[in-house]
Amino acid sequence: MIKINENYLKLKSSYLFVEIAKRVSAYQRENPDNRIIKLGIGDVTEPLPKACIAAFHSAVEELGKDETFKGYGPEQGYPFLRQAIAENDFASRGAPVSAEEIFVSDGSKCDTGNFQELFSQDITLAVSDPVYPVYLDTNIMAGRTDKVLLLPSIRENGFVPSPPKETADLVYLCFPNNPTGATASKAELEEWVDYAKRNRALLLFDAAYESFIRDKEIPHSIYEIPGAEEVAVEFRSFSKTAGFTGTRCAYTVVPKKVMAYDSKGQGYPLWDLWNRRQSTKFNGVSYPVQKAAAAIYTPEGKGEVKALSDYYLGNAEIIRKTFLEIGFEVTGGDNSPYIWIATGKDSWDFFDYLLQKAEVVCTPGSGFGKSGEGYVRISAFNKREKVQEALERIRKIL
Amino acid sequence: MIKINENYLKLKSSYLFVEIAKRVSAYQRENPDNRIIKLGIGDVTEPLPKACIAAFHSAVEELGKDETFKGYGPEQGYPFLRQAIAENDFASRGAPVSAEEIFVSDGSKCDTGNFQELFSQDITLAVSDPVYPVYLDTNIMAGRTDKVLLLPSIRENGFVPSPPKETADLVYLCFPNNPTGATASKAELEEWVDYAKRNRALLLFDAAYESFIRDKEIPHSIYEIPGAEEVAVEFRSFSKTAGFTGTRCAYTVVPKKVMAYDSKGQGYPLWDLWNRRQSTKFNGVSYPVQKAAAAIYTPEGKGEVKALSDYYLGNAEIIRKTFLEIGFEVTGGDNSPYIWIATGKDSWDFFDYLLQKAEVVCTPGSGFGKSGEGYVRISAFNKREKVQEALERIRKIL
Repeated sequence: MIKINENYLKLKSSYLFVEIAKRVSAYQRENPDNRIIKLGIGDVTEPLPKACIAAFHSAVEELGKDETFKGYGPEQGYPFLRQAIAENDFASRGAPVSAEEIFVSDGSKCDTGNFQELFSQDITLAVSDPVYPVYLDTNIMAGRTDKVLLLPSIRENGFVPSPPKETADLVYLCFPNNPTGATASKAELEEWVDYAKRNRALLLFDAAYESFIRDKEIPHSIYEIPGAEEVAVEFRSFSKTAGFTGTRCAYTVVPKKVMAYDSKGQGYPLWDLWNRRQSTKFNGVSYPVQKAAAAIYTPEGKGEVKALSDYYLGNAEIIRKTFLEIGFEVTGGDNSPYIWIATGKDSWDFFDYLLQKAEVVCTPGSGFGKSGEGYVRISAFNKREKVQEALERIRKIL
Repeated sequence: MIKINENYLKLKSSYLFVEIAKRVSAYQRENPDNRIIKLGIGDVTEPLPKACIAAFHSAVEELGKDETFKGYGPEQGYPFLRQAIAENDFASRGAPVSAEEIFVSDGSKCDTGNFQELFSQDITLAVSDPVYPVYLDTNIMAGRTDKVLLLPSIRENGFVPSPPKETADLVYLCFPNNPTGATASKAELEEWVDYAKRNRALLLFDAAYESFIRDKEIPHSIYEIPGAEEVAVEFRSFSKTAGFTGTRCAYTVVPKKVMAYDSKGQGYPLWDLWNRRQSTKFNGVSYPVQKAAAAIYTPEGKGEVKALSDYYLGNAEIIRKTFLEIGFEVTGGDNSPYIWIATGKDSWDFFDYLLQKAEVVCTPGSGFGKSGEGYVRISAFNKREKVQEALERIRKIL
């Protein structure tokens, strides 16, 4: 008899965004002439940079010609892209990351979800609360349900949890944070690197939103912290940076110095394990997509990508200012595309109120964990005129 | 302490194609003016069909414009592609598969590798010997090392194993087979469907090479067998069909009627589990890639794709005929791009002989399992003139 992985039965059946979609549809059915504006899911709205489009076309052209056709590429990504990433995202900031330590993939959701496969089932996890649901759900699927430390990310710690007294083996960190929009300072990240070294723990650092950082004091990469290259893996994505949510390209940094251990305490380079995992279960990213991604690092591409994040940060500023002016307590939106708002009431009640009175969709904070109750996340990913109109409507009802 | 998944330590360190690459490099270093022809790895050489290139370009264009830009797509794939697949690959052959049962992905290696995540760790597997290494390696990574039935695919059973007397829960079948090139008849597949029904087992049917079938009696899909839609999942790929090895698109069929069971014997639709897995760990395939794939099903695309497989089958015919004429025992190559040759000596010795005397690279059969010893796999994926020259050289030395 084919038996299921019963850990799947422990997953909550209703995923946050499914419930949101359900409520929005119900509202639309009852109000067919609605003018709903969605500031919920963090999906981009602006076209791909012209530099990416040009490179994309030219790579497609190559696939159509005998002399330039490409079959299987390296599972780890093409050297032209890995090299561009190492130089531009790391060497330029003094972070010691080589091209070989970069694994190109089709998405950070896949990588953050798959990475836990490399570890024993009985490790202890630490995740922030509220948290991006994928970190937890993929560990539940793997049977890691009991030994989870939830680190409250709350007003009292500026939404940046300190390392706990307890020992965790695998720590998920995300800065700029989804959902709170909070950023971590160099000193705060240093504490985490120290913690990892003391406990031989591993940090999984999700930097999907780093391109929205404007404050020069805030690190973009965990590898700006000395010693992090021994205890941290970093996830990056072109989804929000360059509008790649529908194009699909991301990467993961696994430094050669990071070790993990067998039950006798013998160390193994994590690079070897991830390389084996990717070589066995993955066949690399579409060649034209990698070419499009590499164009982000050309002078033209860099300018366009900066303009994209500036545009969304402009939206974030409108959202942030409006809520502050109305009198709400607000986090994020300055170095992040997410704005986290203390609603003063139940998250879903506030969601429903905004939906019904302003026809604006946000994301209830409680969907990200217990400590998210009483908050909503508002996303800056939309057209400027829609954001402006949404905020005008919100101003009238709050 | 971050502890590794120690199952990774049970994997053989030297992957078949790594060892081949090593021997080829060594030969090249010693013989710098060699003219090596590779008939080893199954990678395509012909450009993408024009219909795919045109659709690819036009979708890239859409991503560059405000009005047509696409962000996140459905994790399961766009309806336009799922619909085209259901109609053309299944309805047209009387196989009962709906668009909703099709999950578009970036590769069959990923899907066949990831699918085992849905099952309990203590199930019994059945795989053929020789076998595509990914089926076994991904189960070893998941800790399934003891309960594995190896089904010899040998001369005596025409390289198509019958269901065993023992009970297996999860059965990997691949037809046309990699590496042997053998195909399974309707009657042989019916036996397997019966076996699965009797034992509440699940068949994972890998049909990556179905487009090479020319014999009208041979099923292209497991769903041509009545009842298979209750006990089988099917994997398909555009890699070999349409030259997508570097473009990356494939799909998996999970019929709504297929059930798997908890330890109490309660049934759960497998569709729900795979849908949850994909929604949590995957973010869909690049939009332009899906558009390129859908073009395979246009009248122009169908013609071009047929011409592609005809081309490689023409190569296969040359390989097959030559070895038969020399006096070897040969399987495959008529309805498959792989030719499986009984060498009369050790697989690696024959590999080395071909490399050193003819400068032709093949794949040693022993690399696919114990029963592959004494065989080599020759791949038809190359340019016609290279195949011709390789076979002329081989004729001179054998």
